[in-house]
Amino acid sequence: MKIIIVGATGTMGKHLVSALEKEHEIIKASDKGGDILVDITSTESIENFFKQVGPFDALISTAGPTHVGPWKAMTDKEFRKGVEGKMMGQINLVLIGQHYIKPKGSFTLIAGALTHDPQKNFANASAANGAVEGFVRAAAIELENGLRINAVSPTVIEASPQYFPFFPGELPVTMRQLEYMFFKSLFGAGTGQVIKP
Amino acid sequence: MKIIIVGATGTMGKHLVSALEKEHEIIKASDKGGDILVDITSTESIENFFKQVGPFDALISTAGPTHVGPWKAMTDKEFRKGVEGKMMGQINLVLIGQHYIKPKGSFTLIAGALTHDPQKNFANASAANGAVEGFVRAAAIELENGLRINAVSPTVIEASPQYFPFFPGELPVTMRQLEYMFFKSLFGAGTGQVIKP
Repeated sequence: MKIIIVGATGTMGKHLVSALEKEHEIIKASDKGGDILVDITSTESIENFFKQVGPFDALISTAGPTHVGPWKAMTDKEFRKGVEGKMMGQINLVLIGQHYIKPKGSFTLIAGALTHDPQKNFANASAANGAVEGFVRAAAIELENGLRINAVSPTVIEASPQYFPFFPGELPVTMRQLEYMFFKSLFGAGTGQVIKP
Repeated sequence: MKIIIVGATGTMGKHLVSALEKEHEIIKASDKGGDILVDITSTESIENFFKQVGPFDALISTAGPTHVGPWKAMTDKEFRKGVEGKMMGQINLVLIGQHYIKPKGSFTLIAGALTHDPQKNFANASAANGAVEGFVRAAAIELENGLRINAVSPTVIEASPQYFPFFPGELPVTMRQLEYMFFKSLFGAGTGQVIKP
C-alpha cells in the first residue's frame, strides 16, 4: 500500500513509519521535514501536497497541535490553535484528500481520550478531539467507493513521559498498543469508528 | 433568576422564553432582535453584550448555525459556518461569560444527536456538536465558584417539521421534552453532562 503519514516527524509518526515501512510505501509528510512538506492549517498547502503525492491507498494523521494552558487565561486566540490545527487541519485533509485517494482507501485521524476524560489545561484538545470524532462518524456515511474513515483515540503515550504529570490516573498507552490501533483502522474493515486502546 | 437566552428569536429560544418568563427575569438575546443584540461570531460583540447585561445567574444558548449540504461539495469554506457559529460562538460565550456570571451560575449550550447519530448532509453539525460536548466536559472541571456547564442534545424537534425528511428514523423530540432537558441543566446540580431526551 502507498500510505501517507502526516506528522511523520513527531513521536507517534516516527514510530508508525518504522512499523510500516518494511512492507509499504510510506510518504512521510510534516511541516518540518520528511519527504514532502505540508502545512495542514493551509488548504492551499494541502491541495498542493496531494497533487505532488498522486493517488494513494491510505492517509494516517498524527498531527494534532492544540493549546495547553490555564483555563482562566484561555480566550478565542489560544483556542484557535486546536481549531486550525488538530480539528480543521485534519478535517481538511479528508475534505480535500477524498478527491485524490484510491477507491477502498482509508483515512485515519488522531483524536484522544480527552474527549471523554478531560484533564485540566486541555479544554482546547477536548473540543478539537470531539469535533474530529463527530466528523469521522458523519464522514463515514457519506464517503463513497468503499472509502473508510476512523479516528484513533489514545490517552497519553508511553514515549512522551513529559506529559505524564498532566494525566493523573491515566495508564499510558504503549507504543505497541498505539501501533495496533492504527493497524485496526488501516487493515480492518471498520469505518466511522473511534478506536480506543 | 436572571437568565440570558441566546437565540431567543429562534424556534427553541421562543419556546424557552415562554416557559421561563413567568418566574424568572429573562434577557432575550439574538443577532436579529430580542432585548439585546449579540453576534456570537464576534468576540467583541459578546464582550459588549455581557457588559450591557451585567451579572447574571444563567446563560442558555440555542444558537447553532451550521452548514447543511452535500458532502462532496463541502470544503473548508462551508465548514466554517458551524466552526464560527455553533462551535466557537458558543465556546466564546463561556470563555468570556465566565468573567461576568455570578457564583453558582450555570451555562447551558446546545449540541445535538448528530454527534453520535450522523445523517447525510450534516457533517458540519456533527463536528460542531462533538466540539461543544468535549468542551463542556472539559470546562466543567475547570470552572470555579460553583459554576456549572452542560449541553442539551436533542434530535430533530417537533416544532421543526421541515427537517423531518432529513432525519429518517429519528423520533422527534417534543417541545416539553426539550424544555425539561434545559430545566435539568438550569435547576439540577449536574455539570459536564450531555443531556439527552
